[in-house]
Amino acid sequence: MERGLTNRKEVAKLAGVSEATVSRVLNGIGPMKETTRERVLQAARQLNYELNAVASSFARGRSGNLGVVLPHVPKVHLFSTYYFSELLGGIGEAVHAKGYGLLLLFRDPSEAYDYVSLYRTQRVDACIILGSSAIDTERDAVHRLAEERLPYCVMDQRFDHPQLNIVAADHEQGSYEAVKHLIDKGCRHIGFLNGSPQYSNSGDRLTGYRRALSEAGIPWDEAAVYEGNYSRTSGKKAAALVYRDLERLDGIFVGNDRMAIGLMQGLRELGCRLPEDLKVVAYDNSDAASFTEPPLTTVKVPFYDMGKLAAERLLRVLADKASDPCPQIKEKLPTELVIRKSSGN
Amino acid sequence: MERGLTNRKEVAKLAGVSEATVSRVLNGIGPMKETTRERVLQAARQLNYELNAVASSFARGRSGNLGVVLPHVPKVHLFSTYYFSELLGGIGEAVHAKGYGLLLLFRDPSEAYDYVSLYRTQRVDACIILGSSAIDTERDAVHRLAEERLPYCVMDQRFDHPQLNIVAADHEQGSYEAVKHLIDKGCRHIGFLNGSPQYSNSGDRLTGYRRALSEAGIPWDEAAVYEGNYSRTSGKKAAALVYRDLERLDGIFVGNDRMAIGLMQGLRELGCRLPEDLKVVAYDNSDAASFTEPPLTTVKVPFYDMGKLAAERLLRVLADKASDPCPQIKEKLPTELVIRKSSGN
Repeated sequence: MERGLTNRKEVAKLAGVSEATVSRVLNGIGPMKETTRERVLQAARQLNYELNAVASSFARGRSGNLGVVLPHVPKVHLFSTYYFSELLGGIGEAVHAKGYGLLLLFRDPSEAYDYVSLYRTQRVDACIILGSSAIDTERDAVHRLAEERLPYCVMDQRFDHPQLNIVAADHEQGSYEAVKHLIDKGCRHIGFLNGSPQYSNSGDRLTGYRRALSEAGIPWDEAAVYEGNYSRTSGKKAAALVYRDLERLDGIFVGNDRMAIGLMQGLRELGCRLPEDLKVVAYDNSDAASFTEPPLTTVKVPFYDMGKLAAERLLRVLADKASDPCPQIKEKLPTELVIRKSSGN
Repeated sequence: MERGLTNRKEVAKLAGVSEATVSRVLNGIGPMKETTRERVLQAARQLNYELNAVASSFARGRSGNLGVVLPHVPKVHLFSTYYFSELLGGIGEAVHAKGYGLLLLFRDPSEAYDYVSLYRTQRVDACIILGSSAIDTERDAVHRLAEERLPYCVMDQRFDHPQLNIVAADHEQGSYEAVKHLIDKGCRHIGFLNGSPQYSNSGDRLTGYRRALSEAGIPWDEAAVYEGNYSRTSGKKAAALVYRDLERLDGIFVGNDRMAIGLMQGLRELGCRLPEDLKVVAYDNSDAASFTEPPLTTVKVPFYDMGKLAAERLLRVLADKASDPCPQIKEKLPTELVIRKSSGN
């Protein structure tokens, strides 16, 4: 957006403001005193200083904010989950690098959220949607964004729209590798504690789990699939069911570290020795994975990088005045198995 | 801010916009198309509709955003620390309840941050400062906010200004109780792994530690105070020093859970049995505290409540048009000792 120092200096001098202020007015970043904006625009016009760019950014009325919309769930400390905190950290990194602000907005998961109005009211220049799931109201809301070709990105959740902007991780492959590792460790009766089915990544994990079993010629047993909701409590609750089935299980794949930690706590309280009685592979590679007892073998997901990439792509779109409508964003990042003691090493 | 439905309806009808738009223009929430704003104000004037309130909120030009300014530290995943994620969670809860947005802004810790300009440019209506420390540039910046009596709040960091707005926890008392617990458990040679000295809460912990020792008639030994920086790595690094002094230590108080987890990992790798060789009390009561081996006795700090309280107080100030300048905010919340196995129970 740099337009050569001499010109900007001249505009600043004529308007009686700093060069930084000229930049902010011309790039439409941030609310600005109306009289100051007028004075700068007047000076720019008088000096015949790239009027079209000025007019267009003025018309766009930039807020200088990247929006991040996330679900509000009472009593759930969302930021304290590895998933959200890492995604936000990566987004924050990109936003900081470009001098943008990060506007967090909360939506009620049960209600339709009017994303488009965020742009219309100029609260955000682009937005990232976190914690989205495949319920009807959400799908409709995201489809509207896609149809308008606005600069937005959904994080790690698929919707079936040809213009969907998404940054995700390859959860199918990650899960395949997790289960294959258990098979390589000699397991033949492998359970799966999955998270909530409304997330497309839960479906992807199931697909990867089944692919690994099928490839090894192990029949798929629906009774060995348990359902939690990605919370530690739900993992602990599943422990009773897994314990009941312990005779016919030698390994279990768990959809995230939090559930695995709850499951292991619950199993230990019931008298299980881990990994002797049951080999465990988890998912996420959160900080906690390395200091549980036993430390978790788990699938590392680059949440931080995913957040950073989504934000960088959107900020690049905003910087490129020619890219209206927003070009499609479609990225799938690889995961990586991290081997520790919980899988019997 | 409700002014009676009939009137608002009439203004909306005359201006040809929705009632929601009238509310947003009159309450000054969010940027708004200039022509729409003019149309609504025109209609309000024509109907003689509470013009003073209109004029004042218009002059204030509300953004509808509560700002949260936090340090940007390269490579540190700030949101993934219990401290920041819980504070943010509480702030988010309050902000969501009032329909506000939460604008995250990053500052470089080494540079002076111009907080006042956030208000001048109407990016925020109020702001909360996280991760602040007692360095000169920070102190000057916070003092300017205090002098202007703007709606702001510093989280958990003291500055010596009579108009300082602060929400903090009682770290001195929390630390006193932590160390007293070790004394009650029979410890007489108690080390202290403290965090970085530029935070006032590090100083408070040292004061509480010394008070507990002094009360028990135990002489204070400067050589038993170690310094980390609140990271797990720094705790692990301190393990070598603590191990060297193990002969003359029977307990250690650690300034946060992360350092304690690193310290315990390091000590175990050096062959220590915990808590047999050394009783440990930590600080924060993060999620991880309950699933380390041994589980941590630790001081529970109500970070979530602190964030919520600071945001609620500021949003109440904003809702009360009479409260300009901002009345002082000064809150200190109590902590609570949570007893687990690391202290020999």
